Amino acid sequence: MTINIGVIGTGAIGADHARRITETLTGGAIVAVNDVNLSQAKAVVDKLNIEATVYDSGHDLINDDNVHAVLVTSWGPTHEEFVVAAVNAGKYVFCEKPLATSAQGCRNIIEAEMAAGKRLVQVGFMRPYDSGYRQLKSAIDTGLIGEPLMIHCAHRNPSVPEAYITPMAIHDTLIHELDVLRWLLDDDYVSAQVVFPRKTKYAHSKVADPQIVLLETKKGVRIDVEVFVNCKYGYDIQCSVVGEEGIANLPEPQSLLIRKDAKLSNAILMDWKDRFIAAYDVELQAFLDGISAGKLTGPSSWDGMAAAVASDACVKAQESQKIEPIEMPVRPAFYD
Amino acid sequence: MTINIGVIGTGAIGADHARRITETLTGGAIVAVNDVNLSQAKAVVDKLNIEATVYDSGHDLINDDNVHAVLVTSWGPTHEEFVVAAVNAGKYVFCEKPLATSAQGCRNIIEAEMAAGKRLVQVGFMRPYDSGYRQLKSAIDTGLIGEPLMIHCAHRNPSVPEAYITPMAIHDTLIHELDVLRWLLDDDYVSAQVVFPRKTKYAHSKVADPQIVLLETKKGVRIDVEVFVNCKYGYDIQCSVVGEEGIANLPEPQSLLIRKDAKLSNAILMDWKDRFIAAYDVELQAFLDGISAGKLTGPSSWDGMAAAVASDACVKAQESQKIEPIEMPVRPAFYD
Amino acid sequence: MTINIGVIGTGAIGADHARRITETLTGGAIVAVNDVNLSQAKAVVDKLNIEATVYDSGHDLINDDNVHAVLVTSWGPTHEEFVVAAVNAGKYVFCEKPLATSAQGCRNIIEAEMAAGKRLVQVGFMRPYDSGYRQLKSAIDTGLIGEPLMIHCAHRNPSVPEAYITPMAIHDTLIHELDVLRWLLDDDYVSAQVVFPRKTKYAHSKVADPQIVLLETKKGVRIDVEVFVNCKYGYDIQCSVVGEEGIANLPEPQSLLIRKDAKLSNAILMDWKDRFIAAYDVELQAFLDGISAGKLTGPSSWDGMAAAVASDACVKAQESQKIEPIEMPVRPAFYD
Amino acid sequence: MTINIGVIGTGAIGADHARRITETLTGGAIVAVNDVNLSQAKAVVDKLNIEATVYDSGHDLINDDNVHAVLVTSWGPTHEEFVVAAVNAGKYVFCEKPLATSAQGCRNIIEAEMAAGKRLVQVGFMRPYDSGYRQLKSAIDTGLIGEPLMIHCAHRNPSVPEAYITPMAIHDTLIHELDVLRWLLDDDYVSAQVVFPRKTKYAHSKVADPQIVLLETKKGVRIDVEVFVNCKYGYDIQCSVVGEEGIANLPEPQSLLIRKDAKLSNAILMDWKDRFIAAYDVELQAFLDGISAGKLTGPSSWDGMAAAVASDACVKAQESQKIEPIEMPVRPAFYD
Repeated sequence: MTINIGVIGTGAIGADHARRITETLTGGAIVAVNDVNLSQAKAVVDKLNIEATVYDSGHDLINDDNVHAVLVTSWGPTHEEFVVAAVNAGKYVFCEKPLATSAQGCRNIIEAEMAAGKRLVQVGFMRPYDSGYRQLKSAIDTGLIGEPLMIHCAHRNPSVPEAYITPMAIHDTLIHELDVLRWLLDDDYVSAQVVFPRKTKYAHSKVADPQIVLLETKKGVRIDVEVFVNCKYGYDIQCSVVGEEGIANLPEPQSLLIRKDAKLSNAILMDWKDRFIAAYDVELQAFLDGISAGKLTGPSSWDGMAAAVASDACVKAQESQKIEPIEMPVRPAFYD
Repeated sequence: MTINIGVIGTGAIGADHARRITETLTGGAIVAVNDVNLSQAKAVVDKLNIEATVYDSGHDLINDDNVHAVLVTSWGPTHEEFVVAAVNAGKYVFCEKPLATSAQGCRNIIEAEMAAGKRLVQVGFMRPYDSGYRQLKSAIDTGLIGEPLMIHCAHRNPSVPEAYITPMAIHDTLIHELDVLRWLLDDDYVSAQVVFPRKTKYAHSKVADPQIVLLETKKGVRIDVEVFVNCKYGYDIQCSVVGEEGIANLPEPQSLLIRKDAKLSNAILMDWKDRFIAAYDVELQAFLDGISAGKLTGPSSWDGMAAAVASDACVKAQESQKIEPIEMPVRPAFYD
Repeated sequence: MTINIGVIGTGAIGADHARRITETLTGGAIVAVNDVNLSQAKAVVDKLNIEATVYDSGHDLINDDNVHAVLVTSWGPTHEEFVVAAVNAGKYVFCEKPLATSAQGCRNIIEAEMAAGKRLVQVGFMRPYDSGYRQLKSAIDTGLIGEPLMIHCAHRNPSVPEAYITPMAIHDTLIHELDVLRWLLDDDYVSAQVVFPRKTKYAHSKVADPQIVLLETKKGVRIDVEVFVNCKYGYDIQCSVVGEEGIANLPEPQSLLIRKDAKLSNAILMDWKDRFIAAYDVELQAFLDGISAGKLTGPSSWDGMAAAVASDACVKAQESQKIEPIEMPVRPAFYD
Repeated sequence: MTINIGVIGTGAIGADHARRITETLTGGAIVAVNDVNLSQAKAVVDKLNIEATVYDSGHDLINDDNVHAVLVTSWGPTHEEFVVAAVNAGKYVFCEKPLATSAQGCRNIIEAEMAAGKRLVQVGFMRPYDSGYRQLKSAIDTGLIGEPLMIHCAHRNPSVPEAYITPMAIHDTLIHELDVLRWLLDDDYVSAQVVFPRKTKYAHSKVADPQIVLLETKKGVRIDVEVFVNCKYGYDIQCSVVGEEGIANLPEPQSLLIRKDAKLSNAILMDWKDRFIAAYDVELQAFLDGISAGKLTGPSSWDGMAAAVASDACVKAQESQKIEPIEMPVRPAFYD
């Protein structure tokens, strides 16, 4: 049975998810859309050539009986409101990151979801659906590299606009590592530290770039993440897990090996959108399949909150230049 | 609009394509099946939990008005008959390789298709849909490596069963290179030579293994393909295109870089089914999309015939141990 | 003119250097040897089949007029005494690491050398003579990767004996990075921090393993060095310099690319002695050539002291688990 | 005891070998030089600041009692004459390739050497002294990759001058593979074939470029060598040995892995002189050590002749465009 989906927020990511569900994935159909910019919402419907109701209120969309599940891809500060409403209406909801703009907002969602009595929320962290990270998790889970002891990561962008300021290195960039590393390790963070290396001349004035974030987990794993968002040369995501028996590195994206101009080279992506493009498909198909099976399995509200709690501690560590504790509440059995 | 598909031949590949269309791809539905083993055909319908008519005749399936397009995945010697019948019925048909078991059989199909006045046939060569080969073609077409002068290939399997005999190195193995290299180069073969290196001790008695096939194209490109089907170590497909400005190598399949046991290693696949698994999806989706658009774009009947003609010359070269000409007829404008 | 050399300490490294000078390098000859174990000293002379005086006192060897230069390869705690004596005798001296067992010992040597009025001492840090590190330095010095901002390193051994305890991770292992990174960056350290990840089950009880050492330089470069001496899989030295324009990684040791057993692999060395074997030749040849040219260029007494000062701070940081300042005295122009 | 060496021919390679013996290697000294250009010979003596007699006759140099061994690095057509003379004088001789300009010339040298009763000649093929090829030979000899069945090679230069014509692809370029592959396999060639791919636009008019040379050995190993001397992108030597148990590839020259400008790259050498520079040292040191030990072990006169015989067949195959037999005489026990 086709799952009828309503989309709240038809900006770039919302429109792209609508296209994905309409043209690429199976089992879902867009039946309703909403956006603060109504004409944009209409344009998406026209472009996809679908029959979908255009709502001027996200809440009306949620309450439409024909809508089985909701995609919240609106402006971040509105996420909490719409997710809680969808959950209260008993509907499945896929919410782009951040789940909420505060840890308290996440807790409100968790409370609503637990009251609803079943997992209804999937958060839009796509890296656990990337084939490379899945291979890495398999290498850990099967014992191929033994117990993880350390993880070395890098998250590099060629450049960022002037509006990108120091805390965004956490909220917008590191956030993906904060989520995916918890998932890889099946572990939680206990402390964070941030050090600021010499600043690149290519960074705008209001951002410390690069940064190195040091994390410690409950099991004692030590993580270092280089966040370098004006690295010039490419969009480059590195992750190396050092275990007791060996080390596994995240695969490089597939590319031709070229011999030319005195170089033996592989291309490095320049645009982040290309890096996890396949993962977006897998992520959203998993949401549809989870609904069909009556059981969501992807990043949960709890995961969304955990990332938010860790983010807040990292930003605090940016400011204090000290080792900051990360106090994660005990996970309810509901989320096991 | 959903394209209703009938499947003739529900063995391993037919059943897999049926699953693919039902569960993974968009725009198609299986509405009819046929197999010489009727209970197997029924089992596929049951397993996929679909509503589909089970025919005991492939021709009845073809003539079912509810069937818009046909998948011919039956035993090779029956391909020609069913493809011609489907074409004569004006229906789109996807035929697994070989298109026919003789060049004359291919020509009969071509004649029927030209009489029908439009391309109706896609042959099941999946490599042009592999992301690595597509990158390679792009490197050629954009001029990145200049005009191609030579191609060095290897097609290696860990082992083959005793039934695999010398000519199968051409018909079952090289056939993929024969197709994909024509497509890569947009060129045709003019001669073939086969040399037999020292035989591996791991080969059964009736197969010369390895073999090296040397091909020459109209434009003068020289190709060497090592076919080595008892190489032990893995299923390994190599393709290196040497151009006037540089060289491009087919990417290795994505895998973790592992440091363990005194080795820095990437895994090599052992099972051929894993190598092009994504390409099968893309290939069949292209068939569905081509029907929707009213224009097939994948490997055509002509391509099927070209591969058959080249195969025949290679087998002759195995026997004669001489350089054999490959006489390809002039391509009708119909197939441009 | 041949440089006549006396060797104080004919254990493993001393005997190997004597062989090197006798059989592999040009411009030097071993004319005198000394060891606390006299019969071992004699055995070296016999094995190399050379004419050399066997002294039972290092000081007598130093004072032999026929000895132009001295190799101090005796037990660490005796280094200072012999180096000072050789310098006071106006002789060139090559001293294996450590130059002295304390920063004060190094300062005593520096004082003697400055009093002598010219550089007479080369310390046995061999990594600056390794071809890979030299390429790395060239990439920095030519501006290929722009200004260095961060360095990520790993120093891994398959295993260490039970006698290897926590501070040895600094004094015996990290010491090489402490030297070579100063040289690479032409910079000095200002602070050190050490974090202890979850301990590997393969480590003996008295060693924290692995460790991560974080260093900061005057120019603001941030360095992280993973020291992991029971990593099982190999002796592996990694160094990745992140610059404003790009990143350069130390080359892997040369090895065959092997396809076998479902792996595409390069061998990783298991024995540290193989890793820098060529660098030992280059290092000692540079010492001989420096003497011939009347100008030593390799690691100086000052470099020996700088490594000692940094080591002491790192050990303090192991104990305090805090960020420890590294207070490096101002370098006299004598050592520019 | 120092081996006194006379050099006949002080052009680029002769001067370089003189420098090598004087400054880098151990156990040898240049005591006499000769060149058709006497002032050039004198200049070499001056530049190296050595005491050496300058002869205006190669034969006088050979007959100088103070000369223990001779380096023949003169113009190719004079090699035979000087090597025979040196052998007849009972002196060791190192002769740059070609040993002689005809197979008959080589046979004359072999005859002289056998008459002298011991191996006196080493031919200047340096690849067997390259560390990469030595690793490859070890992989074969230890059985790591099982019995060799095929070898795929490439010999690529960025460009060649106009004077480089078609047969030089054999005599000056392929000659190195002809030598090193015999040594790798401990085998001899039985046939050769040459095919001419489409010509690169970068080749001058009198050279067919690229070429593919196909060789067959007694043991049945099949070899293909791509010779491409205007490949633009670099000086690139590839060798992949396919065995029954696995495949080993010649290592790439050591270089930094660089991330820059959207590429993950290693440098490729542009100048052939850099590729085997270390091998020249090892080769000539082996000659000196062989003399000291009274037993030469490097490429022999027989190897020189074998390469010449194979070369002649390859040139014939270029002309005939047929498979040409390579008739190698039976090796006398003298050369075992």
